[in-house]
Amino acid sequence: MSDSAKSQESKGIALTDRQRIAWLRLIRSDNVGPVTFRDLINHVGSAETALEMLPELSRRGGSTRAIRIATVAEAERELAIAARCGARFVGIGEPDYPAALRQIDGAPPLLAVKGRASTGTAPALGIVGARNASISGAKFAAMIARDVGRAGYTIISGLARGIDTAAHRASLDTGTIAVLAGGIDKPYPPENVPLLDEITGGQGLAITEMPFGWEPRARDFPRRNRLIAGVALGLAVVEAASRSGSLITARYAADFGRLVFAVPGSPLDPRCHGTNGLLKDGAVVTTEARDILEALAPLSRIDLFDQPQAREAENDVDIGTERRPAAALPGDREREAIIDALGPTPVETDDIIRHTGFAASAVYLVLLELDLAGRLHRHPGGLVSLEPLG
Amino acid sequence: MSDSAKSQESKGIALTDRQRIAWLRLIRSDNVGPVTFRDLINHVGSAETALEMLPELSRRGGSTRAIRIATVAEAERELAIAARCGARFVGIGEPDYPAALRQIDGAPPLLAVKGRASTGTAPALGIVGARNASISGAKFAAMIARDVGRAGYTIISGLARGIDTAAHRASLDTGTIAVLAGGIDKPYPPENVPLLDEITGGQGLAITEMPFGWEPRARDFPRRNRLIAGVALGLAVVEAASRSGSLITARYAADFGRLVFAVPGSPLDPRCHGTNGLLKDGAVVTTEARDILEALAPLSRIDLFDQPQAREAENDVDIGTERRPAAALPGDREREAIIDALGPTPVETDDIIRHTGFAASAVYLVLLELDLAGRLHRHPGGLVSLEPLG
Repeated sequence: MSDSAKSQESKGIALTDRQRIAWLRLIRSDNVGPVTFRDLINHVGSAETALEMLPELSRRGGSTRAIRIATVAEAERELAIAARCGARFVGIGEPDYPAALRQIDGAPPLLAVKGRASTGTAPALGIVGARNASISGAKFAAMIARDVGRAGYTIISGLARGIDTAAHRASLDTGTIAVLAGGIDKPYPPENVPLLDEITGGQGLAITEMPFGWEPRARDFPRRNRLIAGVALGLAVVEAASRSGSLITARYAADFGRLVFAVPGSPLDPRCHGTNGLLKDGAVVTTEARDILEALAPLSRIDLFDQPQAREAENDVDIGTERRPAAALPGDREREAIIDALGPTPVETDDIIRHTGFAASAVYLVLLELDLAGRLHRHPGGLVSLEPLG
Repeated sequence: MSDSAKSQESKGIALTDRQRIAWLRLIRSDNVGPVTFRDLINHVGSAETALEMLPELSRRGGSTRAIRIATVAEAERELAIAARCGARFVGIGEPDYPAALRQIDGAPPLLAVKGRASTGTAPALGIVGARNASISGAKFAAMIARDVGRAGYTIISGLARGIDTAAHRASLDTGTIAVLAGGIDKPYPPENVPLLDEITGGQGLAITEMPFGWEPRARDFPRRNRLIAGVALGLAVVEAASRSGSLITARYAADFGRLVFAVPGSPLDPRCHGTNGLLKDGAVVTTEARDILEALAPLSRIDLFDQPQAREAENDVDIGTERRPAAALPGDREREAIIDALGPTPVETDDIIRHTGFAASAVYLVLLELDLAGRLHRHPGGLVSLEPLG
């Protein structure tokens, strides 16, 4: 077996150009988010088949108007713009897709990436914190970023002012990832555009799950934070006020089972209220890079990186392989019974399967139909509820 | 039963004047520390009997010169000086003796106290920290002292500059205890003499286990710190450098099973290295008084104060009651065998009993003899070793 074949086997598959266009169309279509995308691929077999079936699935789910599907031309145009600005798309399961991100629920099927690809596959530490950081906070973030970066970790952050900026700058040489809340051509804040250019022009990487040209709005930032937490093995929070975006990132990190590190600070400084709160909730007390390196060592060496085979075998999401045949569509009887079983109260899919007695595949497909018709609400923990047909 | 009889039964006994003189003589005699004092009372029955037996016990232990025993005149003189400066002596087991202190190994049999006695019996929080405190550290210490003081706790500290001073000042109205490293007439540092006068003239109390007139030396401060940790139910450390006295107090507190609270601070401030280290070791993250009050509530309400009967019954130290008859002195055969069993390596008393097969009372008495002869070393955890006869 050649080295490249071996690498492909252990690190995942590569999408063909045609598949990549189909993936891009599918994720850019109406009512298709990462979870729906995964369910579609896993149940109908491939993105191309899913695209073909979208109109019927949506109609059967009760949609009264045609679902908007991204065209081949739109997808090709986005790919062309990406290429022009030096970016490209990496699909989940491809070698350049961040290994840790692949494990989270609702991982983006496609990431727009720009810069040095290998930076995205190294074990990563997230460093986030206050935009109005104190001098000592910024200094500490830089120290941690430098020392943890030198130890072989990529530093991932959100390109914001303050702590984020300090963390990126201090890891320019060792590798840093800037996660954007908008399109890869719409970095925010404007004053950090030169920094982003330094990042993508050197050892760094910019990533986003948002389409090209997307102007980031306030509500896009929590999603950006989720991506930071998903790529990182651990998240260090340096100065964070109560109810700040950094705490949202920390909550995502905890939900994903990532280690959360918090830097202690004076209780009289509002910029430390959030970080001290994290310490009360059990975050690792962090006063030097060693605190982080010691805690991450077992994770970065074993769990997620040295045993990719084992991890893939455990992974119940078969996305990327596109080997499954399309399942037969469920009949009206099944659909009606499943809709009857649903209501405004979120329930588990397994409960629907048990309650109706139908095959799991039929239940998943009806849920997909409702999803594509814009009638299904997906809740944390895989719960679903029904939006009444209005 | 009269109310006062009830109170005496539940809160302990009161020493007679004659007993108090005997106790003072015994604890001021050569080679008698708190542990030896307790063992003597528990094994020979009373301080008066112990004083009578000291010369013989010491001689039998191998001492080549007469043990120095404090005279009645010396004890009466110390009592008189105490009375003149408004202080007095409280014996372990007496109602005014701090309840929590009574539970620790090597609790001082007699405390010199000056000020409002009831302040010594309320549940107490220790607050200690850096002498070169930052402005915000001192402010925080004051805030905690005020809020925890208002909630009904006495604040205990060491009268040092910085954090200690801030803690005492903020709890002058609610009750504060200054623990001295020297005699009660030798406060340190000199600039805090006016503060000490405010404390003892108001709701506060000064306490020490050292004799009147004793000038505090460097090595007396760890013992002072031990007393702070012993009286307190919990210890809050506000700003402490690595290897500082506050960390010694914290170690004593942890050894005594007290809750240790630490205030987080910037890793870049050396005054926070010790406190952040305590957090890493599991101290309670403390950013407001509520953190302390919530943690102490179960202890202050139940364990140590509301059930004095139960606590006394559990207490295996019968000190203060002086009811036991004097045990027969061990013979030469026992003494020699026990001395043979001892060496420079610390061993447990139980091991000596098992090894020699002698009655526990005989073993304890031989150990007392060696102790009074200055030949026994007592180690933490009740271990003992022998100093070779030189």
